[in-house]
Amino acid sequence: MTNILLVGSGGVGTIAALNLEAGGLASVTAVLRSNYNKVTTDGFHIKSVDHGEITHWRPSKILNKIPHSEKHFDYIVVTTKNIADASPTTAELISPAITPGKTVIVLIQNGLNIEKPVFEKFPQNVVLSGVSRVDSHEIATGVIEQVDHDRLIIGAFANPNPNGDGIDADAEAAARHFVQIYSAAGKTDCRYIPAAEVPFYRWQKLVYNACMNTICAITGLDTGRIQLAGDVVESLVRPAMNEIVAAAAAVGVRLPGDIVDRMISIDPVTAYLRPSMLEDVGRGNLTEFENILGEPLREGTARGMSMPTATFLYHTLKAIQWRVKEEKGMITIPSKSV
Amino acid sequence: MTNILLVGSGGVGTIAALNLEAGGLASVTAVLRSNYNKVTTDGFHIKSVDHGEITHWRPSKILNKIPHSEKHFDYIVVTTKNIADASPTTAELISPAITPGKTVIVLIQNGLNIEKPVFEKFPQNVVLSGVSRVDSHEIATGVIEQVDHDRLIIGAFANPNPNGDGIDADAEAAARHFVQIYSAAGKTDCRYIPAAEVPFYRWQKLVYNACMNTICAITGLDTGRIQLAGDVVESLVRPAMNEIVAAAAAVGVRLPGDIVDRMISIDPVTAYLRPSMLEDVGRGNLTEFENILGEPLREGTARGMSMPTATFLYHTLKAIQWRVKEEKGMITIPSKSV
Repeated sequence: MTNILLVGSGGVGTIAALNLEAGGLASVTAVLRSNYNKVTTDGFHIKSVDHGEITHWRPSKILNKIPHSEKHFDYIVVTTKNIADASPTTAELISPAITPGKTVIVLIQNGLNIEKPVFEKFPQNVVLSGVSRVDSHEIATGVIEQVDHDRLIIGAFANPNPNGDGIDADAEAAARHFVQIYSAAGKTDCRYIPAAEVPFYRWQKLVYNACMNTICAITGLDTGRIQLAGDVVESLVRPAMNEIVAAAAAVGVRLPGDIVDRMISIDPVTAYLRPSMLEDVGRGNLTEFENILGEPLREGTARGMSMPTATFLYHTLKAIQWRVKEEKGMITIPSKSV
Repeated sequence: MTNILLVGSGGVGTIAALNLEAGGLASVTAVLRSNYNKVTTDGFHIKSVDHGEITHWRPSKILNKIPHSEKHFDYIVVTTKNIADASPTTAELISPAITPGKTVIVLIQNGLNIEKPVFEKFPQNVVLSGVSRVDSHEIATGVIEQVDHDRLIIGAFANPNPNGDGIDADAEAAARHFVQIYSAAGKTDCRYIPAAEVPFYRWQKLVYNACMNTICAITGLDTGRIQLAGDVVESLVRPAMNEIVAAAAAVGVRLPGDIVDRMISIDPVTAYLRPSMLEDVGRGNLTEFENILGEPLREGTARGMSMPTATFLYHTLKAIQWRVKEEKGMITIPSKSV
């Protein structure tokens, strides 16, 4: 039985926990935050296109904080938001539960270069990339609604540390093993990819996330209204997506030629989807803009790419992030005096 | 006695009405909207750095809609917001009260090219530009607080119509006469400028309004926080202001060399001023973005200027305006179907 610690049990994490346990190969300990009391009492109520309706479901164990590594976890799966510019970072958050050189860290999170601070802190551990396409949300405390099939792409991140293991057999084996556990119940589309293909899948998803999510967040429009609102697609979305595609090419990732058109029209207009970044800004939450947009922007501009639209979006989101931090009391300013 | 119709009796308009009547040379008929009932009953309560505290003040006459021109007005002073992309436009709004070829139209409004649709509709009338620096707000219905001195710059707009009068003696005389009436009580700084200088003063104010107001509106930051929030000034405000200065130069308006630095630091940080465009976006109101930003952008880009920051700000505000229109029911979209 593989011991797995799950950090972040919202829409994506809870479905991951369910999949990991459904095949009978893993025991999941889940760290819950806002829904801890509710789930301890009643369990999760899950409505899933893959699993049907399940009530009173709980993973093997529930905790309300990250445990210390006295108990060894084979894998730590992280599905929290990744706010690079606020504490605790993902690396800090999971730190107590990591067995150095042993625990495999699975980051089912969006954005680029998210593995770097983790490798920095744990240079001897394997870190896996999870690119998820599940459309699953916690619609009320402890109530999870998964409206689209779970599609998860798993591969090893290359370890950049001179003392690390690079891309090696251990990391590939850990990725394959994780996919085996996740897929054992036969209800999901969880796919292994070689480490060399990880950047492709992360950049591919960024074409959408770095542009659509950010522009929705800044304008307050959902994905349907973005397409209906006059020239927003042509004036903002398409230029931004073209810049991300160019940045990907600059780092050696060649995305399909039709990717921009495909990403622009990937959501049916009348679905009126609200990307989580839009929800976050509306609710006064911090956003993942540094990993979603800042990192691809830095990768591209460092290689001489001109990325004016992405630059503007980035600075706007950085200003909004500052405002949210100040509203949350994370930044103190002089008092009003005029 | 000069007959003046005032359209828009909020913070700016009410102080204008007070100044116009204080000198005893004009009789003001004010068109009120949201504060009509309150002011009819109790009058205005005005706290003014120029006039002191005045209670139960009313202009000579109060109306709740634009009157027809059976009664002739020598001047119509417009202090409403100027939303170019929504009906009624300023020209449509004031139309019933205009005596063609006679009534002098005074636009105390922000933005560029605001006179063009007015000249189009009334090619034989004089149109005056009012650039106001008053810091006055309606802090509650019928309660006006003016915290900074009234400084108003009046000059004639050049009439672009082949059948119009161009810049002529009549227009200059009308501007001088208006300044005389407005200044008669000796409590304000109301200044006449020749028509040739009007573009300078309008562009000069735009350096601030087209950039600071728009960036505050998009980021949700006030003018103090804009300066405190890391690199917002250098990444957004300064580039945008430089572009407006370049656009002004392209149309032949040479602004002072230090104008960008001056505009960036014109407000004390700890005043934490909230530009009206920021308030408007926060309250779900339409904004004047077309005249404040769209027009200077079009003037500059039509002359080959590169204005990337202004372009992004413009498209972002255009998207936000579309959202507000849709929220207000001015735009209908297909219903949700997925």
